Parts: sequence; structure tokens; C-alpha cells
Amino acid sequence: MTDFFQGIDAATYEGPDSTNPMAFRHYNPDEIVMGKRMEDHLRFACAWWHSFAWPGGDPFGGQTFERPWFEGSGFGDTMALAKLKADVAFEMFDLIGVPYFCWHDADIRPEGDSFAESKRNFEEIIDYIGTKMETSGKKLLWGTANLFSHRRFMSGAATNPDPDVFAWSAATVKNCIDATARLGGENYVLWGGREGYETLLNTDLARERQQAGRFLQMVVDYKHKIGFKGAILIEPKPQEPTKHQYDYDVATVYGFLKEFGLEGEVQVNIEQGHAILAGHSFEHELAMARALGIFGSIDMNRNDYQSGWDTDQFPNNVPEVALAYYEVLRAGGFTTGGTNFDAKLRRQSLDPEDLIAAHIGGMDVCAAGLKAAAAMLEDGSLEAAREARYAGWDGSDLLDSDLATIAARVEAGGIDPTPRSGKQEVLENLVNRFL
Amino acid sequence: MTDFFQGIDAATYEGPDSTNPMAFRHYNPDEIVMGKRMEDHLRFACAWWHSFAWPGGDPFGGQTFERPWFEGSGFGDTMALAKLKADVAFEMFDLIGVPYFCWHDADIRPEGDSFAESKRNFEEIIDYIGTKMETSGKKLLWGTANLFSHRRFMSGAATNPDPDVFAWSAATVKNCIDATARLGGENYVLWGGREGYETLLNTDLARERQQAGRFLQMVVDYKHKIGFKGAILIEPKPQEPTKHQYDYDVATVYGFLKEFGLEGEVQVNIEQGHAILAGHSFEHELAMARALGIFGSIDMNRNDYQSGWDTDQFPNNVPEVALAYYEVLRAGGFTTGGTNFDAKLRRQSLDPEDLIAAHIGGMDVCAAGLKAAAAMLEDGSLEAAREARYAGWDGSDLLDSDLATIAARVEAGGIDPTPRSGKQEVLENLVNRFL
Amino acid sequence: MTDFFQGIDAATYEGPDSTNPMAFRHYNPDEIVMGKRMEDHLRFACAWWHSFAWPGGDPFGGQTFERPWFEGSGFGDTMALAKLKADVAFEMFDLIGVPYFCWHDADIRPEGDSFAESKRNFEEIIDYIGTKMETSGKKLLWGTANLFSHRRFMSGAATNPDPDVFAWSAATVKNCIDATARLGGENYVLWGGREGYETLLNTDLARERQQAGRFLQMVVDYKHKIGFKGAILIEPKPQEPTKHQYDYDVATVYGFLKEFGLEGEVQVNIEQGHAILAGHSFEHELAMARALGIFGSIDMNRNDYQSGWDTDQFPNNVPEVALAYYEVLRAGGFTTGGTNFDAKLRRQSLDPEDLIAAHIGGMDVCAAGLKAAAAMLEDGSLEAAREARYAGWDGSDLLDSDLATIAARVEAGGIDPTPRSGKQEVLENLVNRFL
Amino acid sequence: MTDFFQGIDAATYEGPDSTNPMAFRHYNPDEIVMGKRMEDHLRFACAWWHSFAWPGGDPFGGQTFERPWFEGSGFGDTMALAKLKADVAFEMFDLIGVPYFCWHDADIRPEGDSFAESKRNFEEIIDYIGTKMETSGKKLLWGTANLFSHRRFMSGAATNPDPDVFAWSAATVKNCIDATARLGGENYVLWGGREGYETLLNTDLARERQQAGRFLQMVVDYKHKIGFKGAILIEPKPQEPTKHQYDYDVATVYGFLKEFGLEGEVQVNIEQGHAILAGHSFEHELAMARALGIFGSIDMNRNDYQSGWDTDQFPNNVPEVALAYYEVLRAGGFTTGGTNFDAKLRRQSLDPEDLIAAHIGGMDVCAAGLKAAAAMLEDGSLEAAREARYAGWDGSDLLDSDLATIAARVEAGGIDPTPRSGKQEVLENLVNRFL
Repeated sequence: MTDFFQGIDAATYEGPDSTNPMAFRHYNPDEIVMGKRMEDHLRFACAWWHSFAWPGGDPFGGQTFERPWFEGSGFGDTMALAKLKADVAFEMFDLIGVPYFCWHDADIRPEGDSFAESKRNFEEIIDYIGTKMETSGKKLLWGTANLFSHRRFMSGAATNPDPDVFAWSAATVKNCIDATARLGGENYVLWGGREGYETLLNTDLARERQQAGRFLQMVVDYKHKIGFKGAILIEPKPQEPTKHQYDYDVATVYGFLKEFGLEGEVQVNIEQGHAILAGHSFEHELAMARALGIFGSIDMNRNDYQSGWDTDQFPNNVPEVALAYYEVLRAGGFTTGGTNFDAKLRRQSLDPEDLIAAHIGGMDVCAAGLKAAAAMLEDGSLEAAREARYAGWDGSDLLDSDLATIAARVEAGGIDPTPRSGKQEVLENLVNRFL
Repeated sequence: MTDFFQGIDAATYEGPDSTNPMAFRHYNPDEIVMGKRMEDHLRFACAWWHSFAWPGGDPFGGQTFERPWFEGSGFGDTMALAKLKADVAFEMFDLIGVPYFCWHDADIRPEGDSFAESKRNFEEIIDYIGTKMETSGKKLLWGTANLFSHRRFMSGAATNPDPDVFAWSAATVKNCIDATARLGGENYVLWGGREGYETLLNTDLARERQQAGRFLQMVVDYKHKIGFKGAILIEPKPQEPTKHQYDYDVATVYGFLKEFGLEGEVQVNIEQGHAILAGHSFEHELAMARALGIFGSIDMNRNDYQSGWDTDQFPNNVPEVALAYYEVLRAGGFTTGGTNFDAKLRRQSLDPEDLIAAHIGGMDVCAAGLKAAAAMLEDGSLEAAREARYAGWDGSDLLDSDLATIAARVEAGGIDPTPRSGKQEVLENLVNRFL
Repeated sequence: MTDFFQGIDAATYEGPDSTNPMAFRHYNPDEIVMGKRMEDHLRFACAWWHSFAWPGGDPFGGQTFERPWFEGSGFGDTMALAKLKADVAFEMFDLIGVPYFCWHDADIRPEGDSFAESKRNFEEIIDYIGTKMETSGKKLLWGTANLFSHRRFMSGAATNPDPDVFAWSAATVKNCIDATARLGGENYVLWGGREGYETLLNTDLARERQQAGRFLQMVVDYKHKIGFKGAILIEPKPQEPTKHQYDYDVATVYGFLKEFGLEGEVQVNIEQGHAILAGHSFEHELAMARALGIFGSIDMNRNDYQSGWDTDQFPNNVPEVALAYYEVLRAGGFTTGGTNFDAKLRRQSLDPEDLIAAHIGGMDVCAAGLKAAAAMLEDGSLEAAREARYAGWDGSDLLDSDLATIAARVEAGGIDPTPRSGKQEVLENLVNRFL
Repeated sequence: MTDFFQGIDAATYEGPDSTNPMAFRHYNPDEIVMGKRMEDHLRFACAWWHSFAWPGGDPFGGQTFERPWFEGSGFGDTMALAKLKADVAFEMFDLIGVPYFCWHDADIRPEGDSFAESKRNFEEIIDYIGTKMETSGKKLLWGTANLFSHRRFMSGAATNPDPDVFAWSAATVKNCIDATARLGGENYVLWGGREGYETLLNTDLARERQQAGRFLQMVVDYKHKIGFKGAILIEPKPQEPTKHQYDYDVATVYGFLKEFGLEGEVQVNIEQGHAILAGHSFEHELAMARALGIFGSIDMNRNDYQSGWDTDQFPNNVPEVALAYYEVLRAGGFTTGGTNFDAKLRRQSLDPEDLIAAHIGGMDVCAAGLKAAAAMLEDGSLEAAREARYAGWDGSDLLDSDLATIAARVEAGGIDPTPRSGKQEVLENLVNRFL
């Protein structure tokens, strides 16, 4: 045991009336919701990068967090630091009782002086994590490659004007899929952090799209070749870091998948914050993914509606979270996916206790949201109202007709549509009854 | 002749040094730009709705314009008013020398008490306009149906929960395509002003998408059935009037077309203001449409970047317009499409002179932008720089490879990408040289 | 009794477990919260304009609501319609149990052909309303003048380039203050719907500011002259309808009041939606008004965070509303102010039932928010944490010092600040405990 | 001479037809514009921080620039690096011919282990810069203190909950003012990068405002005490890095100055990008500062309208820049202020040439904008139209009247305002004539 979380006990469920700030008031893993354990519904995962690798910097200020596993702490060499970081991570997974975690390669291993050295570092730490997984029972929700932080990726990874960067990226993804498979990961995620552009003036949009499409086909081929059973997921985001990111939102990703014949192979990992930045509600993106048949997993970190960048905050608004899980439940719940907190502490939240409390609060908000969503679905009033609104279509053969036939019918008279109330406020009140 | 524009002479080209506010300083229809007459490049069109039908209202105030063809003017019955409106419109087309115009059915004909009566009104006014086209030589760039203003469309047209509204909409579009064909229109446009939703709580996203897809297939089938040679265009917009509009942006429309097998049949009409509201630059949407093979036509009206609704202003920034025409020229220029001003006068701009001056100014800005774009393209430096940036891909067979092969190559060493400057500022300076 | 709300009973409090959509689950007027009746805390008011005068139009579509008091209904002349509207309004006040209402002059009286005729209409309807107030016990929270809808105000009211419009506006406000006083109104509000500009090119910012300042001084003088005891309130809004509205936000209004020596005379009426449009949270604007000593009243209608115009929706998110009332309570609660719903039904919500349900839902959300806010304040943990954060300042005389003295002290060593956690997530969790 | 800019010659004016990417086409320092040398109008300044200290990182990626003066270059110790940085800076000032520069303390000196050591480093480098100024003739436009990057400032500087941070900040500003005075700086700027909050839950808004007000009073007192003749300037920004920054915009700063009696002592440094982020146009903020009598200086770096964070790009749109200088000229031009480029290269712009080209392009855009603005002002049409619009007020004594008197006059009839066109499009066309 490290002493990082010294004095902090494992969080337990104490019920809604608890005033213990380090206990769950709503998240009760074994509680049955719609016939399934709450833990199996929510499938919580921690993000290595924000919780253990991010130093607290922003564009106007540097590191605020002081962690013993950061360089300069004096603890040891970079590999020793990486292992200490893993030790602390697994201690946190235990303290808060999350079953899953996620990583980028760059979060868990030190960068080497060459591709080969980085790979050796990576494989050593993957083994180390694998051992810890065995003893802890924790599982890998997804792995992913960081193809955006190093300056070599500044002009893109798969979409780089330089084929050598494409190659470097392909090799990196190959190793990350291998590691994900090796650890029994349930998904593999691609977030194209630099797949986009800063200025159209130097960008060949069509060419970069072809590169991205071919890259993704290679990823899917490789998955099948090695028999990796996890899902391949793309994570949409509209902008930041680049001015325009290619995987703008769910609908954009769908068109991309269709163009390259991959709509049956690849799904989406939807983040609340990215949905917001794209001008959508989170539930919109979830409903759209469901309608298009590409729903995969979620990142449950909110964005400040009024900050124009990715704020990656822990969720704290139960009504909003409930609407999101309502769509997840309507989509049949998660299969390989889960609820990942791609969430940063605020940079002033310096204490180890903050890291634990933030996750506890986020998990509790999700649990409360899930229960409300399930209650709404079981109540059935909302779905009954929705179906009633479209009831006129039952038995209609209008969609089998054609313009001329329909026009003749309308011109003959007898069709004069009567507007009916959309009942938005009534339905909003209905939702509030479950919150 | 009506006396609406009394005292205003036809605008002529007087060259860049002219101080005549009612003359063109840049738009010279017969001037040859890249081997084509400027008029044939730009293919300007006036929008009936904003210029002749809109009364100047906004959500906080009513009519400001007083036009003799508005109800209550005492000029005559509604059909007489519609004809007066058409007379004035054609007078304006002459005064400013635009070759094209566009309409919604609701702009040009009085609403009747029944579908049949509206249709009769419509056909009478179409005949009236047809006669005026013959004498004036003016042409129809596109027709479209207003399926959003009347309360019957409040919950959508093709995507309405009520099949009767679908039917009414289908019949309306059939008549509008007929009329467009009758007048030799070069395109038919669909803007789904109410195809979207106000709240997900009462909306079946998947079902409405199927309705919309089937509707569009019927439109395409009908076009072929009657032998209409014009292009079918969808106009994307992200929101307003509904909270979420289905045809969000170019990439979204592409995915929709792919789903319904219509990507070879339907193109897009891209509006600067709608691009802005979707979080894109205008040139992004144009470049994207070109890359996806669905570029059709443009609405050249700008949005205030800082107003969150459709401000529909006449263009006035030459550098921005130049970048747009640069993409149009790279796409090979317009075929059936053109430059429509879907632009409103500001509601304080009461005078007939304002209407003329606004169009003259907008046309001049477009002409200046086109000339700058052509000069950039002919100069070739920008395209040479773009090609040089991707030159590493020439002859590369990397895209034919696979992850494992590439990874083996990278791990063997020898590939260590060297970042190269993206030269954004240098390219921006280069563009400014042509403005 | 009119038959508009036929079949709808008065809403009563049935408690949190009620499933009756037309009953209160949280709003219990006589329940004591922090020593005061809930009704006296919240001081709910209905807005005449949205609930009774607005026809359901938006920039892309016309009237959707069909009300017997709208012109064309055949009910009677314009004054009869205005009285019917008042009858229905008071019936709704009874059905939902709100103690207050608000109006613009233009909401309640027909526009006349002259100023004098409008005034006569207004005075007749004021008398009519006065009589209804006596029998119903309902009260006027505030009156205000509509100086933005008529085309005469298109370029501003007090800030108009034409002094005649200034005069017309002054005369109108005089009459509205008289009427407000006559009805025992507790406040008089000024929202400068056209006090702003569309383009700086035709605007003399400095001059218009002087006009607005002088206008407000006249209003304050008149209030004192006639002995009106109510508060004068300015309602900030950043944009819409004009591109830039002068009363941008609370801080801007404060600077304006200071310039004209009115900061002790005028307070602010803060709307959630306007706060959002200005880039602030509602609670920010409330806290700022409290800090500046100008807190007056609130409009409790939310804006969609992702729509760039005033959506004026009924509140439906309890956590957000709780934070707002927390600031209201910290400011000492309302004195003359109250909770006005400046909220529109969605334009598809056609039914009389929708109007009632929307208010019930909004009132319930406010009641739940108030109770949570009171519980937080009574618990004291949040305030204790806030005070502890600043405890280092207790007894400090640093603010009495000067730069040179302080610098000498710091350079001498001994001061090296240690960052302390800001505890944001812990505090957010704490808040969630009360929701 | 260092060899950083090896092979790059000093930029000279070659006129509008030059195709030399490293020459000025518009900026001709000695050219007379409205009776003053262009250089004396524009008063260009370079920003040490972005051009020499920023490594090219963003929230998703690290350093891209490799500069010999960055740590790890092997060139020497931190003070040697700081001097090399200064050498290169002055070489650039010469190459592009800017007369001024600006710095934060943290840009120019290495951070020490203690306040005293940092101060010693600072004073040594100030001497070094002073010597270079003598030989080069370059001048200091303004100095400022970086009170936001170091973790000690994470919760604010003057507004910190910890008085020790207030003290540290006060001492730092004292030293920075001393240094600014020592180098003959013409202004001293305060940008409150952390003066704001992340969450209201832990923030005492009123208390922090008092701290900020008192801090500013101390600054002004100190300025007078040491006889510093430069102007004290506050730089507004609405958000980022904090969720809410106190110095939101010009109007907000004005209210703050009024509260603390400093409106005659402090002016504003307005940045285009910050104006945009606050929802204003740049020219709005300039006109507002002029109207309020607090116009000081500008940061002429643009923001991408569609990116929600500070993009700090070099200006490249002449029409926009022209409108800004038009307001500067109307305000009488700069006195102590100037045109600072607080502008970052894009992080892909790696080459020394990019740094030079970006400044040349920016300066050229400003020069073209200035000339257009001067021509508009000399032409006089725009100002004549503005005055004509308000001509009705000439000789009016309406503002000396009172509500009752005015109302009597209006009710008596005879006043019925006639709307007049605002002529926005005509004026926009007029502006375009000068571009």
C-alpha cells in the first residue's frame, strides 16, 4: 500500500440520509434496477489520464497538483514512477469501488527515446497492470492511444500530411489494441485529437478523409485478424484542440462510417461535454446513436454550458443525468460499453480527498439518475405519450405511396390537418415527478 | 411600371473609383474572369421572401415596412396584391441586373381557404410570373415550398407525428416541383424549417428520420417521373426555428443521404449564416460538400457571428467572401447552382432605396471576392503550397498496407517523423495579397 | 366565469407522492420555510404578455394559439376582447393560486389611433383590472411600458435619434407609473427592448447613453413627485432584439447607475434567461446584484443554454433553481420583488390545460428549489466552508497598507503562500445532499 | 548577433504590388496619415510572452517550438537563456521595425527559489534590457506582472482568499512598476488572469471585489508616490482561465472604477479577442471606452469567432481592423497607448521565418486598416450621416424637462413620430468604398 490516500476509508453505501461526505447515498452496487444489479447497469470506469496523469495546468498556468509519481518528486526513475502511479490508481479503484478503468498508452508508460523503447516500457507496464488486475478483480473498459500530445502529432495522426506520422500512429494503435486484448479490454477507443485542421488554407480535406477512412479500415481488419472481441469505438468532438475536428458529432461519424462501409463495425463513445460543445444535448447524441444503430459507450463528464472549451467536470446535475440514462436504457443498456468519468478535478482541488470525493459524488449522481430513468421507463407514461403522438401512423400506408397519388388525394379535399398540442411542459412536469 | 422605385435608375458598372452609392464598383457582368463572364460565374438570384414578403418583424416587434402590396394598403384584393408584388420584384431584378430569382409558394400566392384554392392561386400567379419571365429574360434559380410558417406545420412537415401533414406537405411539394419545372427552374430546394424537434421527450427520432428519408425518395422519384432536369438540393441548418433541426450541416446531410441511397441524387444548398450557426466557417461547409461530392448552390447571406439566431444580412466582408468563392471555384464553379441572397434588410431600413442599395452592395462584395479568388487560383501559390505539404504521400503505398506490417516497419526503426511548419500565417498573408 | 378553462379545477397541494399532473407536489403556500410562509417567500407573479397576449409566433411561423380574446375571434370589439382577456387572466390566477401579476400597457389595452385614445383605452382597462383585484385579492407585482413592439420604437425609445420618440416614451412611462401606483403596484420595471443598436455605423453611443441616463433620472424624479412607494427596476439583457442592448448585465447597469447618480434609487430585475445570454449563470447575476446593493426582483424563466435567443421557458431544473433561491435568501429574500414567470408556452402547447400545467410545474420547481436552498442555509455547512476559506483575512490590516510597505515585508522573506484546495467537488456534493 | 533569424533580412516597405512575402505592402512608417507619421499613429509593440516565452503547448499537447533559449537547449544557465531570449527579441524588433515591446516579469527573468531571488533576477535582466534599449532606440510600451501562471495564484492574486497571496502580488506589482518606470515605460497594465472564480460555492464575491478595489487604489497611490507618469491600464476579459473573470468587459470595468473612485486614474487596454469572447465587437468596446472616457491602449490580436477560448491570432481581416482604427481615431488616437500584438503563432508554425512573417502580415493589415479609417474620417460622409440622424435634437430642450410636462405635451397631440430609415446597408456600402 502507498500512503497517498492515507486516512481515507473505502466508500460504502449509507443511503440517502447519510451526511457522510465520503459515503454513497445512491450508489448501491448490488441493488436491483430493472432486473439487473446497479453496478452492471452503470459499469463505472476511471480515466487514468485526468485522475493520475494530469498535473493541473491550463493555458494560463502550470502544474498545481503535487503527486509523488510526478517527475521531480524524487521517488525514483520514470518506470518506478509509472508503477507507483498504477499502485495508487488501483488503490483508488478499490476505495471507490469502480469495476473498470481506461488508459491511453501515454498515461501509463514513460515515453522512450525511440518507438521501440516506448514499446518496451509500455509492455512492461501492461504486464504490471495485468498482475494488479488479477489480484484486484478490476477490469479494462477500454484502451486507447494518445496520438495528440507529442509534437510529432501536431498536424494530425492518421490525417497527417506526412505518411511517416500515419505509420507511427498505425504502429502505436496496433500495439495499443494488442495490449487491450492482452488485458481483456471490452472496447478499443479512437479519439482523433489532432484529426482536424487549424486552417483550410493548408489542408486537403478530401485527402485527409480518405486517410482517416483507410486507417479505420486497417484497425477493424486488425481487430478481426487477432480475434479481439471488444468493440471499436470512435469518440466524436467538434473542436478543440483543432479548430475543426473531423469527428464532429454522432451524425458526422455515421456519414463517415457509411462512406467507408464500417457502420456495422464501429460504434461511438459519446461524451456529455463533447455533445454540448457540438451544440447538442447529451441525450440528443445518445438518441441519435441509438437511431443510427451505433451506440457504444459514454464518457459521463459534463461541460460548463458557458465555457467554450472542454471543462471535463464531474457530473452533478441529476435531472440531466437521468435523461441521459433514460436514452441508455431505451437503447437496451450497455453491452460492451460503460460509464467512464473522463473528468478532471478542478485545478484548485489539490487534496487526495478531493479525488475520492469527486468520484463518489459523480457516481452518486449517476446512480440517482439511473434510478429515476428506470422508474420513468417502468412507469411507462412517457413512452405511452410518445406513442400516442404518432398513433395516426399506425396502419397507414402513406409511406408506400408517391407524390402524385398523395397530391391527388389532398387536392380532392378531406385532408386538413388539425394541430395537436405537443405537451412539452406537461411531459417536463412528468419527468420531474421521478427526480 | 409601378412607382415603387420611382427616381431610382438602373445600376451600372462605374469601376472601383466611383463614389456613386447606386452604382457597381466591382460587378461588371461581362467582364471575363477565368475564361467566363462574371455574370455566368456568380449567377445572382434575389429571394422573394425577404425582399418582398417579409414585413420587418422580429420576436419583439411587428411590421416596420410599409409596402403597397401588403394587406391593408388598400391597393386591391389579395391576388391583385400578389401581382403588384411580382411587378415590383421584376422591376427590381431589372434595376440591379440580377438574372435569377427564387420563391417559396407562400411568397408569391395568397393562401386560400383550402388546399385546392391555394393551388389555384398558385397556378394563376405562376402563369403571371411566367409571362413576366418571357418579357424580362429573368430566370428561376430555384423554387421551394414553405412547409414551416403555417400552424399546420408547427410539429414538422415530412416528420410530423400526423400523417395528414405528411400528405399535405407531399402534395405541396409536388405542386411546387411542377411549377418549378413549368418555369424552367434550374433547381428545387428543400429547407426543413420544422423538420426537427423542440423536445426529445415527445419525439421519436428514428421514426421521423425514416419519414424524412422516404419523403425525399418520393421527391427524387417524382423528379425523374416528370423529367425535371433541375437538381434537388437540401439546405442544412442546425437550429432555429426548432431547437434541433435534422439537416444540421453538410456532413449530417451526407450521412442522411447515404442511409437512404440518395447521395447521387441530392446535393446541398449551403448558406453562410447556417454554416456559422453550426459552428463552421462557410468555406468549411463548401469544402466539405466538394469533398463529399454534393456541392450544389449557395445562399450568400452572412450571419452576425455574435448573434445566436439567423440574422440573414447582406454580405459585406470581401476577405470572407473571397474564401468562399475560392472553394466554389475549386469545386469547378456552379453548374445548376448560383448565388442567392437569402438576405433581409435590417428592419430599420425602410426605404425602397435601401432595398436596391443592399443588393448592389452585396453583389459588389461578391464580385470583388470572386475576382480575388480567381486571382489566387490563377497565381497558384496557395495550391502549390498545399500540394507540397502532402508531397510525402506521392508514390507511397502505405494506404495499401496493414497495421501489423506498418508496425513492424516502425518498430524496426528508421521512421521518426520530423514536424514541419504548417505556415498558417504565411498563407494568410499570401491570401491578403489578393484582397 | 368564461369557459376557457372549463373542466380544470383549482390546483391544490397534494404532496411529493401525488401523481396528479394538475396538483402541486412541492408548492404549499402556507408551509413555513425559515420562519416565513412559502407564498411570502416566493411571491409568484404571472406575465400577461406571454400567457395571454403572445400568439405563438416565431421568426419562421405565425400564430399557433387560438384564443377567444384574439382579434378575429368574433367575440367583440377590441375593448371587449381586452376585458375577456383580463377575465381569463384572473381566472387563471385563481386556478393556480398566484398572488401577483405583471403587465405592459400594450398587453392589456388595445392600441388607439392616437396617444390620447390609447391612454383612454388604458385607463378604462386599468379601472377594470382594479375592480377585479378588489374581488380577487390579487396584486400587481409590477407594471411596465412596452416601448419596443410598435414601429415607432424601431430605433429606440429613450435612446432614439428622434426626440419625438423620447417624448412619446416619456409620456407613456408617466402613464404607466400612474397606473401602477393606482393599482398599488410594488415595483415599476424598465426593460429597454430597443435601447441598443443594430450597427455602430449610425449610432452615437455617448449621446444615447446621456439620453438614457436623463430619462431614468426623470423617472425617478416623477416617482418621488407622485409619492409612488414601489421600487424602480431595470431589467438587463445583453442582446436581442438589438445586436447590442445597453443594459447588458447587472455589472453594466451598475456602472450606468453610478454615472447618473442613481445607484441608491434603482435596482435590477434579473431574468435567468437574460443572465444566460450574457454568459453568466443566474446565481452570478444575483450574487453580483447583492454585492452591489441593487438586488430587486427576478424573472424565473430559463433559457435553453444552446439556443442563442430568448427561449423564455418555464423553469424545470430544481438544482439550478435552488442555487438561485440560495442567493435570493442570502440577499435577505424579496422585499418589493418577487418571482415572475416571464415564460412562454412552447408554441406547440396549444391547450388551455398546457397553460395551467406549465405554471404548476414551474411553481413546483421553484418551491422545491426554495426548500432546498433554505435547508442548505439552515444547515450552515456551505457558509461555514466559505468563511473558513477567507479566515486568513480576519484581523488582517493588509488592506490598510500600501505597496511599498507590503513589498518590503515580502522581500524580507517569511511570506510564501501555500495553496489550499478550493474543494469545489466537495461543495458540489454537499449541495446535492439537499436536492 | 545570434543566428536565430539567420538569412532573414530587415523588412522594408515595397508597396502594394510587392509579392515579397517578407516585405511590407502597406506599412510605411514615415508615410503621413492625417498629419502624423504612420508609425506614430500605430505605435506597434511586440509581446515578449507569446513571441519568445510560449512553447507552443495547448491543453491537449505540449511544446512544439524548439528555441535555443528554452530550458534543455544546452545553451547555458537560466540567466544566460534569459539574456539570449532578450538578444533575439531585440533582433526581431529591428528586423520588423517595431518601436515598442511589452513584458510580464515572468517572461523576461527566471523564477527564483524565493521572492528575493526572483527580484534579483528581474533587476539584472531589466538592466540588461535597459542597455539594449539605449543602443536600439526601442521603447517599452508597457510592463505588467504575471500573477496567474504560478500555482500560488491558482485562487487569485489581489482577490485571493489568502492575504499572503495579496501581499505577494502587491510586492510583485510594486517591483514591476518600478522596473517599468526605470525603463521609461509609457503604461503599466493589469490583467487579472486569476481575478475571478471557478465556482460561486466557495467564493465571497463582495469581499473579493473590495480586495480588488483596494489593490488598485494602492497601485494608483504608488504610481503617484514615485512619480511614474505612465498610464495605469486594466485589461478586461470575460472568462478563461477562470469561469468568470471580474474585469468582464469595458462597461464592467467602468462600474468598478466608479465604485472605487478611480475612473479618472485608470483606463483600459482593450483586446480584440477579449471583446469577442465577451459577446461584443472590438469597435463596440473601443467606442464604449471612448464614451466613458477610459480609452487607453489596444491588443490587436483577433479571436476565432467560433472557438470558445482565447485564440490570440494575428489580425488578418482589413475591414474589421479598419473599423477598430476608426474608433481609435475618433477617440483622438493613442496618447500613451499603442497597438500591441498579444498574438501567438499557431503551434504548427515552427520556423523563425513564421515569427517574422506573422508580425509583418499583422502590421500590414493594421496599416491598411488605419489608412482606410483615416480616409473614411477625412471623407466625412459617415460622420455627416451620423450627425444628420440625430439632428432633431439640435436645439431641443427636451432633456431639461420632466415626465409630467412632456406627457402633457404628447397627450395634447401633435407629436406622432415618423420612423426614418437607419440606412445600415447604405452605410456598410459606404465603408466598403474605403477598403
